[in-house]
Amino acid sequence: MPEIGLHVTNSANKSWTVRNVQPVEYDVVLCDEVLDPANQAILGPVPAQGRARRLVVVDANVDALFGQAIRAYFDGNDVEHRVLVLEPGEINKTVEASMRVTTAMDDFGVDRRREPVIAIGGGVLLDVVGYACSIYRRATPFVRVPTTLIGLVDAGVGVKTGVNANGHKNRLGTYFAAERTLLDRKFLTTLPRRHVSNGLAEILKIALIKDRELFDLMEATGEHVLEAKMQRGPGSVDPALEIIDRAIHGMLTELQPNLWEKTLERVVDYGHTFSPSLEMVALPALLHGEAVCIDMALTTCLGEQRGLVTEEERRRVLDLMTRLELPTWHPLLTADLLQRALADTVRHRDGQQRLPLPVGIGSACFVNDVSPQELADAAAALEAFELAQESAVRA
Amino acid sequence: MPEIGLHVTNSANKSWTVRNVQPVEYDVVLCDEVLDPANQAILGPVPAQGRARRLVVVDANVDALFGQAIRAYFDGNDVEHRVLVLEPGEINKTVEASMRVTTAMDDFGVDRRREPVIAIGGGVLLDVVGYACSIYRRATPFVRVPTTLIGLVDAGVGVKTGVNANGHKNRLGTYFAAERTLLDRKFLTTLPRRHVSNGLAEILKIALIKDRELFDLMEATGEHVLEAKMQRGPGSVDPALEIIDRAIHGMLTELQPNLWEKTLERVVDYGHTFSPSLEMVALPALLHGEAVCIDMALTTCLGEQRGLVTEEERRRVLDLMTRLELPTWHPLLTADLLQRALADTVRHRDGQQRLPLPVGIGSACFVNDVSPQELADAAAALEAFELAQESAVRA
Ligand SMILES: NC(=O)c1ccc[n+]([C@@H]2O[C@H](COP(=O)([O-])OP(=O)(O)OC[C@H]3O[C@@H](n4cnc5c(N)ncnc54)[C@H](O)[C@@H]3O)[C@@H](O)[C@H]2O)c1
Ligand SMILES: NC(=O)c1ccc[n+]([C@@H]2O[C@H](COP(=O)([O-])OP(=O)(O)OC[C@H]3O[C@@H](n4cnc5c(N)ncnc54)[C@H](O)[C@@H]3O)[C@@H](O)[C@H]2O)c1
Ligand SMILES: [Zn+2]
Ligand SMILES: [Zn+2]
Repeated sequence: MPEIGLHVTNSANKSWTVRNVQPVEYDVVLCDEVLDPANQAILGPVPAQGRARRLVVVDANVDALFGQAIRAYFDGNDVEHRVLVLEPGEINKTVEASMRVTTAMDDFGVDRRREPVIAIGGGVLLDVVGYACSIYRRATPFVRVPTTLIGLVDAGVGVKTGVNANGHKNRLGTYFAAERTLLDRKFLTTLPRRHVSNGLAEILKIALIKDRELFDLMEATGEHVLEAKMQRGPGSVDPALEIIDRAIHGMLTELQPNLWEKTLERVVDYGHTFSPSLEMVALPALLHGEAVCIDMALTTCLGEQRGLVTEEERRRVLDLMTRLELPTWHPLLTADLLQRALADTVRHRDGQQRLPLPVGIGSACFVNDVSPQELADAAAALEAFELAQESAVRA
Repeated sequence: MPEIGLHVTNSANKSWTVRNVQPVEYDVVLCDEVLDPANQAILGPVPAQGRARRLVVVDANVDALFGQAIRAYFDGNDVEHRVLVLEPGEINKTVEASMRVTTAMDDFGVDRRREPVIAIGGGVLLDVVGYACSIYRRATPFVRVPTTLIGLVDAGVGVKTGVNANGHKNRLGTYFAAERTLLDRKFLTTLPRRHVSNGLAEILKIALIKDRELFDLMEATGEHVLEAKMQRGPGSVDPALEIIDRAIHGMLTELQPNLWEKTLERVVDYGHTFSPSLEMVALPALLHGEAVCIDMALTTCLGEQRGLVTEEERRRVLDLMTRLELPTWHPLLTADLLQRALADTVRHRDGQQRLPLPVGIGSACFVNDVSPQELADAAAALEAFELAQESAVRA
């Protein structure tokens, strides 16, 4: 690495080169009972003198379910607080929502160093609040408390923030680490079943590209952990915890060396090539993980066409998706949408496709030469499986 | 520094600590004739095959003056380009302006890695475009070409971007380095005289807090370089270049080790404690450098009250400000405004004032105990000097 410092060149054109490195550090912690007033994890260090102050941001659903417990937590710790309630859902993942947060930060008078904003909610809420904090006074710390499965295993563990704009998914955003993320799966007991499936899609992504054992575990216990909303089972068996743990570990292993996406070949982009466009045009019909699942189903078929995945493996993958109650196809998955999505992805990946494709189950490769015809074929194959399955169900 | 990597703790609460460092590097280059099509500095590396593409952003005044030359530059280099023209002025340093840039980036289809946006303009334009690029797809490169003196010596050389919001100066922004800044002082020949003075205020800041020789040089040549709009004088003497060079060097020496403002005691914050609030309430009456100058005049008086600055030094400082045609007082500098500004600054500086005060000429210290009374006294003293000077002029 070139030396950090200020380097002056006195040739024909005098010039200065500025070099430095910004250290980033954050914690992701599995916790129980984060809303128990005796648990100081959410609060973190408080001033030796004077009353601590915290701005808390939730969405309306989280407020309805946990608003009272949240207020009791801060009251119980004698923390001056205000709870800002945002409208829920992907449709509200907007610049305007992030401005509501920054305006509330102004109104509350957040100190930009010592009063981290507390974000409690799903992936949308965490992304919006993270974005707002990253730009407020050019960076104000925040703490994440995910309340959805996507939040627990994905949106809550990386450094990406963002909002949708101009009809594009996460078009505006930043790389900005929360001080820490506190993972308490108790929140999931109130989560609608569909949203548990939705989170399992992102976990399946990790399984498919890098963790065969996780895939096996999901195959063995998928319906059960879905039914149990990822809570501890009876006795000492706790497959849900192992699934969450492996998913997070796999994710962080990929993210840590590449926090700012200098390397554009990211296996964790699997399922995220066509899905951003699909999710946005289908909004609000498809959830994020559902769109990701359809993308993975599509690229699994593409992998089969290329001989990277066997017919048997493809079958197992699509079967598991179905058992996890995830969609594998959508009528908006047209040839035209696939082409536009790929073109946008190419602009995102420095002029190349860098498309992650599965290699068997549990491994991946990257390709740059996927043709429109190939994509259309894969989509057609997927639709055929879908139709076959539907008629099997009817029969 | 703790080790980079992914660290797993398996105690009562399993946790992961993610650590990495983000390297940042950028160039600030003194150039001549940047708009000469033969000069490749603005363009930078272009693709081996295919036509290069650039989105260019200017404000309406820059467009009127240099729009033709800018278009000729890209045409001459056979670069596909679009020029986005923003409304000029501090009043347009808004979230909406930054959204116009990101929307244009979408419309033009900017590749997030290989098609840096070209920002040509004053500090407002550079701050807005830098902000837009920093959030577009979570970071898209840009190149800065400042066309004002503030842009050349200040807004163009650091890593801060921003827009005003909720009535607060630079309330939203990021730390985001341009790939490079190209400094061509030829642009200044069309700059209104008042804006040259405005830039000299930021240069004076560097002189006052850390460069006595620069102060002496400004005292000796101030009116002359103002009159010459910082262009080369006759023969080989070129005090304007030395002034610009010293100002940039002093600025970068302070910024480089502290790009992300981890250290909140920043001498370059001198003049920037009360001025953000003053500038915003007076908008559009006061220019940025003018508000900074009033803040410096105020804190020079405060310094005199505290015995840090002699009467003689205070006189020299205020005299030079006047000779540079800069204001030293404003009717909106009320006790109430000073208090509110200080409170907001305290929220910005982790609960303390960390107020830079001059020590003589060319050096500074930090204090945390400035009282409302002291501030009111300094403002009253400043007003008295102002009145005395006005009646002297009238006499
Ligand atoms: N930043 C990242 O790295 C990253 C990673 C993955 C996904 N994401 C983003 O996350 C978003 C999807 O996350 P999500 O599915 O959590 O969305 P979400 O935040 O919209 O939550 C889903 C729904 O569940 C509700 N909810 C939240 N907690 C609940 C609970 N405990 N009980 C009952 N209902 C609850 C919410 O109000 C919402 O209606 C997408 O926008 C996606 O882009 C970001
Ligand atoms: N990011 C930073 O570190 C930093 C540092 C200092 C100042 N700033 C910001 O910079 C802004 C002030 O900069 P500014 O004074 O350049 O503002 P500006 O961009 O508004 O430019 C001043 C005026 O000059 C016009 N102009 C620009 N170039 C011209 C030229 N060559 N000839 C004639 N007219 C020209 C502009 O249209 C505008 O009307 C403030 O918003 C301030 O906060 C930022
Ligand atoms: Zn995702
Ligand atoms: Zn300034």
